[in-house]
Amino acid sequence: MARLVMKFGGTSVASIDLIARIADRVIAAQHQGHEVILVVSAMGHETDRLVSLAEEIDYAAIAGRRELDVLLATGEQVTIALLAMMLLKKGVSAKSYQGHQVRILTDNAHSRARVLSVETESLEADLAQGQVPVIAGFQGVASNGRVTTLGRGGSDTTAVAVAAALKADECQIFTDVDGVYTTDPRVVNDARCMSRITFEEMLELASSGSKVLHTRAVELANKNQVPLRVLSSFNDVAGTLITSEDQVMMEAPLISGIAFTRDEAKLTLRGVSDQPGIASSILAPISAANIEVDMIVQNVGADANTDFTFTVARDDYEVARELLTKVAEDIGAREVIGDEKIAKLSIVGVGMRSHAGVAAKMFEILAAESINIQVISTSEIKISVVIDEKYLELAARALHAGFDLDSSESA
Amino acid sequence: MARLVMKFGGTSVASIDLIARIADRVIAAQHQGHEVILVVSAMGHETDRLVSLAEEIDYAAIAGRRELDVLLATGEQVTIALLAMMLLKKGVSAKSYQGHQVRILTDNAHSRARVLSVETESLEADLAQGQVPVIAGFQGVASNGRVTTLGRGGSDTTAVAVAAALKADECQIFTDVDGVYTTDPRVVNDARCMSRITFEEMLELASSGSKVLHTRAVELANKNQVPLRVLSSFNDVAGTLITSEDQVMMEAPLISGIAFTRDEAKLTLRGVSDQPGIASSILAPISAANIEVDMIVQNVGADANTDFTFTVARDDYEVARELLTKVAEDIGAREVIGDEKIAKLSIVGVGMRSHAGVAAKMFEILAAESINIQVISTSEIKISVVIDEKYLELAARALHAGFDLDSSESA
Repeated sequence: MARLVMKFGGTSVASIDLIARIADRVIAAQHQGHEVILVVSAMGHETDRLVSLAEEIDYAAIAGRRELDVLLATGEQVTIALLAMMLLKKGVSAKSYQGHQVRILTDNAHSRARVLSVETESLEADLAQGQVPVIAGFQGVASNGRVTTLGRGGSDTTAVAVAAALKADECQIFTDVDGVYTTDPRVVNDARCMSRITFEEMLELASSGSKVLHTRAVELANKNQVPLRVLSSFNDVAGTLITSEDQVMMEAPLISGIAFTRDEAKLTLRGVSDQPGIASSILAPISAANIEVDMIVQNVGADANTDFTFTVARDDYEVARELLTKVAEDIGAREVIGDEKIAKLSIVGVGMRSHAGVAAKMFEILAAESINIQVISTSEIKISVVIDEKYLELAARALHAGFDLDSSESA
Repeated sequence: MARLVMKFGGTSVASIDLIARIADRVIAAQHQGHEVILVVSAMGHETDRLVSLAEEIDYAAIAGRRELDVLLATGEQVTIALLAMMLLKKGVSAKSYQGHQVRILTDNAHSRARVLSVETESLEADLAQGQVPVIAGFQGVASNGRVTTLGRGGSDTTAVAVAAALKADECQIFTDVDGVYTTDPRVVNDARCMSRITFEEMLELASSGSKVLHTRAVELANKNQVPLRVLSSFNDVAGTLITSEDQVMMEAPLISGIAFTRDEAKLTLRGVSDQPGIASSILAPISAANIEVDMIVQNVGADANTDFTFTVARDDYEVARELLTKVAEDIGAREVIGDEKIAKLSIVGVGMRSHAGVAAKMFEILAAESINIQVISTSEIKISVVIDEKYLELAARALHAGFDLDSSESA
């Protein structure tokens, strides 16, 4: 018998028929002797509908987001009620839980609250009675009793937090894809669904453009050592299990996946005098404007001058460029150059820790396709490059084949 | 300075524009120095939308209504969030409250819960800070922490319960009509909006077909002596104030209003032996079938036999008639006769307490129009008659004119 937290996102609960299908899945799991706890998102486009109501008021600019959270929390509440009703109708003992009823205590940072604790008393009592708790994802309650929401990836985070608190054997994230792929199957035909990867690889893949899971939920799972499984609501394949490194097979493949994004733009400040504190004086006005910076690269120059390059979300490019032009004047830099037509591409794998030459092989493969690398940045288990956007598909396919991702098996 | 509870129903909160109008009304009341507490219903047809989702599951037949309450409560939660946002945007300090946040404690009769208590601590703290509490009507919380809803007339009941707990000077029920009319203006052109009536008159009018306020909210207001005002969301007229008798002018008019309904049907059991316990043996199977009986009249017969007549909702007529046919056999009654084409018409007024001859005058007026009276039933401040449905409009107009309702002024 295993204790399973199953989380279903918006597309998986978008209709009464789909909700019935979830109930059937729960019944099947119970027949296999498992204990089930459900965490659900708002139905389909319900959150969008609620946001558009709020936008009619144009309230966000004026006040905090306290009441927006009250509004958005109704989306998940509708789903828990319907799913609990469906389970009861099918003869499964079930009970719905809003965030405050569980009690999922958060800080009071409305619309981006962090989970502080999850009370387990009521849930354990339900489970002891064979009852299925149906928990609203994305929402919690602050210590002052106000409704909070967790922001992006919120329902995944709820599921992992609940799984950690209940010491669940597995937290299953049901999505509309079969699992985590070696790369985007829309770009590389040979992309393969991985059966196992490590938390760290998943984190690097997520932060590099793979949108299956939000980084935050993976981090929480890693911290609490909750085995996480990504699988499809729409079929019965096993999906991808994300666990700690020691549970993945010894001989990890060199790299496990390729992630990429077209959502970034590159800015370079040329002829910066190479002195302490210069990086902070460049980036301070950018971050003061709430613009998030992704890659940062500084090359040591031949003389006392250096070039400073960073990437930002493409939406922030114009503002960032204006700010940077002012900075260039202030610090006497030579010029600002920018490029919106870039793509960031990363290869990720715990295997590269113990294997030298992964970076060299990556650059070789790209060179063989005459793809120029504009920026390079590396972490322990990831190598990212910025290239011209038009070469992205070519680069992804070449790397996928070059590192044998279509044939290797990570578990 | 007065403390006002303002309640806005579904049609009054059906769009963001209407919600903005409510905010303006709050601001106007604050400028006049009043303290305001808001109670709101779900937007327009939101509750219908939620019910139709539940009906897709067809759950009501299988289990209790516990989870249906969780579903329906989202409707009011959307409204409180949007209205609080609108107030904040317009510079009014405001805070939304779900039932459990106030804490509106109810029994655990899901979908028809009764209010047990309303905690005032948070609300008083808000008011002391000049903050407007925006409370979700229709919902409460049971002692076990589950969401409950109050059933029909629920939001009006919430408003009165909150007004009673906060010792408000007035509970204002905003609707889509100007107030309480002497009779239905769609039937009688001269129908007049009354400026004042008593709780008892309102109760009799409500139970006799006037749908402006639910009986339950009026009863609660009467019990707690909360002055209740019915007024329109869509204009600025004063509406109708409903208070206790001693606050209405000394010389109350003979009658204050005429109510009627076409929703009933009449059943008569003829030739019933006139003996103790016979009424209960007739009605027991009817009430066992959950059919509510309205008027009950038993005439003393010339011999040992009597006729027993009662009215039921027209929807229940067929079932009631079948049950009654069985009863007739069991108790040896002569026959069962029934009539679906009836109307019940009532005149209501505290004035009739101290004035003899009101009934005589009513019967005279109807006789002058050659309208036959089938059944008569009276209470201290109401006289009801059952007549052929086709004479209803004629009777209503004749009585309205005959009792000078078009000219008299009740305050």
